[in-house]
Amino acid sequence: MKPVVVRRNNRTDASVCARLAKLGVATTHEAMGRSGLMRPYLRPIYPGAQIAGPAVTVLAQPGDNWMIHVAVEQCQKGDVMVVGVTTENDDGMFGDLLATSLKARGVIALVIDAGVRDVATLTEMKFPVWSKAISAKGTVKATPGSVNVPIVCGGAIVNPGDCIVADDDGICVVPRAQAEAAAKAGEQREANEGDKRAQLASGVLGLDLYKMREPLAKAGLTYVDSLDDLK
Amino acid sequence: MKPVVVRRNNRTDASVCARLAKLGVATTHEAMGRSGLMRPYLRPIYPGAQIAGPAVTVLAQPGDNWMIHVAVEQCQKGDVMVVGVTTENDDGMFGDLLATSLKARGVIALVIDAGVRDVATLTEMKFPVWSKAISAKGTVKATPGSVNVPIVCGGAIVNPGDCIVADDDGICVVPRAQAEAAAKAGEQREANEGDKRAQLASGVLGLDLYKMREPLAKAGLTYVDSLDDLK
Amino acid sequence: MKPVVVRRNNRTDASVCARLAKLGVATTHEAMGRSGLMRPYLRPIYPGAQIAGPAVTVLAQPGDNWMIHVAVEQCQKGDVMVVGVTTENDDGMFGDLLATSLKARGVIALVIDAGVRDVATLTEMKFPVWSKAISAKGTVKATPGSVNVPIVCGGAIVNPGDCIVADDDGICVVPRAQAEAAAKAGEQREANEGDKRAQLASGVLGLDLYKMREPLAKAGLTYVDSLDDLK
Amino acid sequence: MKPVVVRRNNRTDASVCARLAKLGVATTHEAMGRSGLMRPYLRPIYPGAQIAGPAVTVLAQPGDNWMIHVAVEQCQKGDVMVVGVTTENDDGMFGDLLATSLKARGVIALVIDAGVRDVATLTEMKFPVWSKAISAKGTVKATPGSVNVPIVCGGAIVNPGDCIVADDDGICVVPRAQAEAAAKAGEQREANEGDKRAQLASGVLGLDLYKMREPLAKAGLTYVDSLDDLK
Amino acid sequence: MKPVVVRRNNRTDASVCARLAKLGVATTHEAMGRSGLMRPYLRPIYPGAQIAGPAVTVLAQPGDNWMIHVAVEQCQKGDVMVVGVTTENDDGMFGDLLATSLKARGVIALVIDAGVRDVATLTEMKFPVWSKAISAKGTVKATPGSVNVPIVCGGAIVNPGDCIVADDDGICVVPRAQAEAAAKAGEQREANEGDKRAQLASGVLGLDLYKMREPLAKAGLTYVDSLDDLK
Amino acid sequence: MKPVVVRRNNRTDASVCARLAKLGVATTHEAMGRSGLMRPYLRPIYPGAQIAGPAVTVLAQPGDNWMIHVAVEQCQKGDVMVVGVTTENDDGMFGDLLATSLKARGVIALVIDAGVRDVATLTEMKFPVWSKAISAKGTVKATPGSVNVPIVCGGAIVNPGDCIVADDDGICVVPRAQAEAAAKAGEQREANEGDKRAQLASGVLGLDLYKMREPLAKAGLTYVDSLDDLK
Repeated sequence: MKPVVVRRNNRTDASVCARLAKLGVATTHEAMGRSGLMRPYLRPIYPGAQIAGPAVTVLAQPGDNWMIHVAVEQCQKGDVMVVGVTTENDDGMFGDLLATSLKARGVIALVIDAGVRDVATLTEMKFPVWSKAISAKGTVKATPGSVNVPIVCGGAIVNPGDCIVADDDGICVVPRAQAEAAAKAGEQREANEGDKRAQLASGVLGLDLYKMREPLAKAGLTYVDSLDDLK
Repeated sequence: MKPVVVRRNNRTDASVCARLAKLGVATTHEAMGRSGLMRPYLRPIYPGAQIAGPAVTVLAQPGDNWMIHVAVEQCQKGDVMVVGVTTENDDGMFGDLLATSLKARGVIALVIDAGVRDVATLTEMKFPVWSKAISAKGTVKATPGSVNVPIVCGGAIVNPGDCIVADDDGICVVPRAQAEAAAKAGEQREANEGDKRAQLASGVLGLDLYKMREPLAKAGLTYVDSLDDLK
Repeated sequence: MKPVVVRRNNRTDASVCARLAKLGVATTHEAMGRSGLMRPYLRPIYPGAQIAGPAVTVLAQPGDNWMIHVAVEQCQKGDVMVVGVTTENDDGMFGDLLATSLKARGVIALVIDAGVRDVATLTEMKFPVWSKAISAKGTVKATPGSVNVPIVCGGAIVNPGDCIVADDDGICVVPRAQAEAAAKAGEQREANEGDKRAQLASGVLGLDLYKMREPLAKAGLTYVDSLDDLK
Repeated sequence: MKPVVVRRNNRTDASVCARLAKLGVATTHEAMGRSGLMRPYLRPIYPGAQIAGPAVTVLAQPGDNWMIHVAVEQCQKGDVMVVGVTTENDDGMFGDLLATSLKARGVIALVIDAGVRDVATLTEMKFPVWSKAISAKGTVKATPGSVNVPIVCGGAIVNPGDCIVADDDGICVVPRAQAEAAAKAGEQREANEGDKRAQLASGVLGLDLYKMREPLAKAGLTYVDSLDDLK
Repeated sequence: MKPVVVRRNNRTDASVCARLAKLGVATTHEAMGRSGLMRPYLRPIYPGAQIAGPAVTVLAQPGDNWMIHVAVEQCQKGDVMVVGVTTENDDGMFGDLLATSLKARGVIALVIDAGVRDVATLTEMKFPVWSKAISAKGTVKATPGSVNVPIVCGGAIVNPGDCIVADDDGICVVPRAQAEAAAKAGEQREANEGDKRAQLASGVLGLDLYKMREPLAKAGLTYVDSLDDLK
Repeated sequence: MKPVVVRRNNRTDASVCARLAKLGVATTHEAMGRSGLMRPYLRPIYPGAQIAGPAVTVLAQPGDNWMIHVAVEQCQKGDVMVVGVTTENDDGMFGDLLATSLKARGVIALVIDAGVRDVATLTEMKFPVWSKAISAKGTVKATPGSVNVPIVCGGAIVNPGDCIVADDDGICVVPRAQAEAAAKAGEQREANEGDKRAQLASGVLGLDLYKMREPLAKAGLTYVDSLDDLK
């Protein structure tokens, strides 16, 4: 693919992002019909961050962070930078200087299918990062990639402008066109959970609350006092 | 295997569990003759928990947490739920609603050879979980498995009622019949460690404390001033 | 290889180690021309430690920590013990008793290409460890290895006396002969970073600060408003 | 666990093993209700072998093949040796000399949750092995384990005498008490497959053959001409 | 995402696929500007197959091959079935009966980000499969996914109708709109290789053939007789 | 580290290499006191090759095969090229054109801690390669590394001129200074194996041949008829 930077980015609306940030990853992912989740090997460098914002996508080469520098210019306040790599790579493509630059532009988080470094400083700066590895391995600036093209990150397709939701449970990608509906569905789901939680806390069994006994019996589940009773 | 729930569970005695909880995993595992340890890929979702209790075992299907719901009913105060899966799977089979339900029954911990989600909430709830992954991936309720049958979790055989000991070092399975003896052996081991620690802290070498110099020499260990002396 | 303990160890100078400790891993690794880094699977058992000291090297057998006991005697104040294994192994070769012994001799840290246990106690003791795994698996004392021979740990060559620099970003090995030059280069690098950071924080782009626009254009990077413009 | 050799072994009947060998792993595993399968990281060292026989189990220590030597004496004609290890280990615990010894006793195959070596010679000898790795790493004879105790191999529980079925698809464990029933169920399954295969080969769709259209519609599956029709 | 089957599939032209099949994966991937390659963990079940054809895409659930049955009906002569899964899964989703069905429709190959079984029979049938694992683990038919939607397989985005090129080196995805250009660029590349190969075979160095000496010197490469000369 | 090519290479004597090639990896590794083995993730691209020759070492950057081109010029008849990478990388750094070039210089094999491509052609050419992966991923020529410096490949230290022994069991590194002694020790070992093999084939047990019964009893091994006898 010819290396290219796409300037225009149809971002998910900020108010919708804010609603998804509040819902968090698990609820958003369920509200999306259980799609859009990145693989669980991507982990936050420190616990407790919970964010959502439109993606600026970066396709980088292994051991080369040139395109992250290029992508900074394409970012706006509230954006989340998402970096995919053309091949498996754990190198430390991002550190405190790049984080300083992103913060100056109002970028709120980084998701990267590679490594990061300076994690002690990033933690102090409260700049949240979800990454595949922590590695001090330095990178070169030798081969261009692309910015704001569709990429794969953590096994999920990310288009520029998609809403990226991330917290301690991982990262979920919400396509822009589905974001409003996902926020609504998630809020409804959450409204129902309070009552369920109260019932479960009072000792009601999920078996009864969700009416599972009959379908379980139909699926062939048997109750015995001891395994010997099976024979 | 026909899906089955076994109701009867010969639990390890609560007082023995309490003694093993105090000893912790490393000491218990040594007291067992270095057996019973689960593989180290199972990690706690937050540091500092140290527990022991009888196992309620669950055999689940990949991407399907139906049997966890079924198993809740078979749990009692003090139990530890242990979930094995019929194949490798990282999905988020367990979250804050199931934890609420387990807490309502007095279950003290979960060990799961798969993923969990809502880890921020689980941490706030102080419900300790040892898992293979943190993942928001939602699961279905479509295919039954079994409850309270022998399972493999983290590479170890777990029978219902076995005592599960878990802390920051991992998880150890103590068969019910060996639990009393393991507690006794562990307590003796610990009684000896105070003196050893004091001697080592004062600068006595393990080489001398454990009388290793002679067996090392017999095993062929040589001391030289420089590698050139070997030639 | 015949099992051997080499007594003589040409240690990197303590004052140079202190300077490298202050620089940390990422800066030291860059100052070394991006060499000497261990693989990122080695992780600290708790965050926040940042150390540097000369290596006492240990070559251990799988599931056998005999040589760690042997190596204690070869350690001095300020040393870092570095353990390689003859094959992949995650067992808990090191725990609080060995840490007590190392502390008594003034050893400041452990780097081990295997597992450790008693991590809660090690954390309380503030004895920093970088390891491949946390595992309670007990080990035997049956087969000798070697002390103070060249080893591979985390994919890097370590010679006895090399300066080991470790922090939250990982571990870097600085050969003794290059340590002084690395410290100097790192300090210069750091001196430049303050100004860069200030400029980036004020909104200057790395693209301009590092004069990347021309080389990027030469390398074929194109800017478009939309992917459709490419066709 | 105290190291022990159990002499008595209630082996699955040879004629039942022969029937299961003919069925192969996939059919046997289905006939068992989809249980008993070892994890797929265990692979044959050469393609084309298809065997079944009663297990002689070995629990070995990492990097130590002493118990394999001990177990040879407990083997009979038609047996399959199955080796579990107390921790993850890839070392080459088995080679052509041990294979010569096993062949002399009539053992027909080895399944090992570790490494093997001399694979070129083993292939010439037509001694089939399913292993986790191929590795020349030599092992010691220093620490005893056990023979003919219940073990975990490839994530499955194996009891001495269980029938081990293995082919290019992997390995399945059939508990002795279920072997006769599994053989019968597998043979019935296979009898049905001929007709199914003929129908599918003639172009009948599985959708129709297995009557899936109605349950799929109930489960919510929709057909559209283009994704745009969904919106 | 709502489960959906998209009937219309804009397939890459058969004659272009034939040209790409002849070029093979490495040349096609280079002709695409080094993009489109799936991760190397996907491997052929037997060596020697080299194919290309338009993709019918399947999004399956873990441990569930229902949608593969559904997708068969959407296939035509010359197609390649490509299966992605909503989460990591190694189960044996595909075997000889499904292969029989696909062959009956003229499908030429399967690429699956999961496991396959009956590999001995598939090899005899000469039905080529590239998969993540070989596993006999049986799957259920319980939860719908989708057919002919964009998926991720082996880390690459696959749209229905894209040309899938596969051989012993792996798998490359060529978007339909780029297929003609990729074929042309690949053929030119190959035309040049004959002369290069002849020169290299005659002993001409790549250093000279590709005129690398000057850029290497500019990049700082130094030649010395011995490492001591560096100091 | 400054990028450098070292021209001088003190190669292991060809006649000693020939003797080690005949012994193969397992025997050589044992003759070396069980040292020098590379990790088992390095596998041959086709079975049956068995070679030995002096190493020309290459330190490459991730996704960059420039230094392999540079290293060709430093090779002589009988050499084995050994490639380490500064970080984990699976890209296809080597293919049929480079193999043609190496063959023209008389190089007999490649060992690479990364990926290779064109494996079908390499197999036809009978150019043996041991690699970490098979991948068509193309690489750049942007950043220099070094040639004929000490490297780590497959977890083992390789110095230029060391004898590399490789066969279906893996790869062993024999330092030049130890090669003659290793060949002698290996030949003696092999001379003894014929008699052992004959005895084992005749049914003599290793337990008796190696006089293991007494040390096993001392180590605490117990024989029982049934596990119940232990209690």
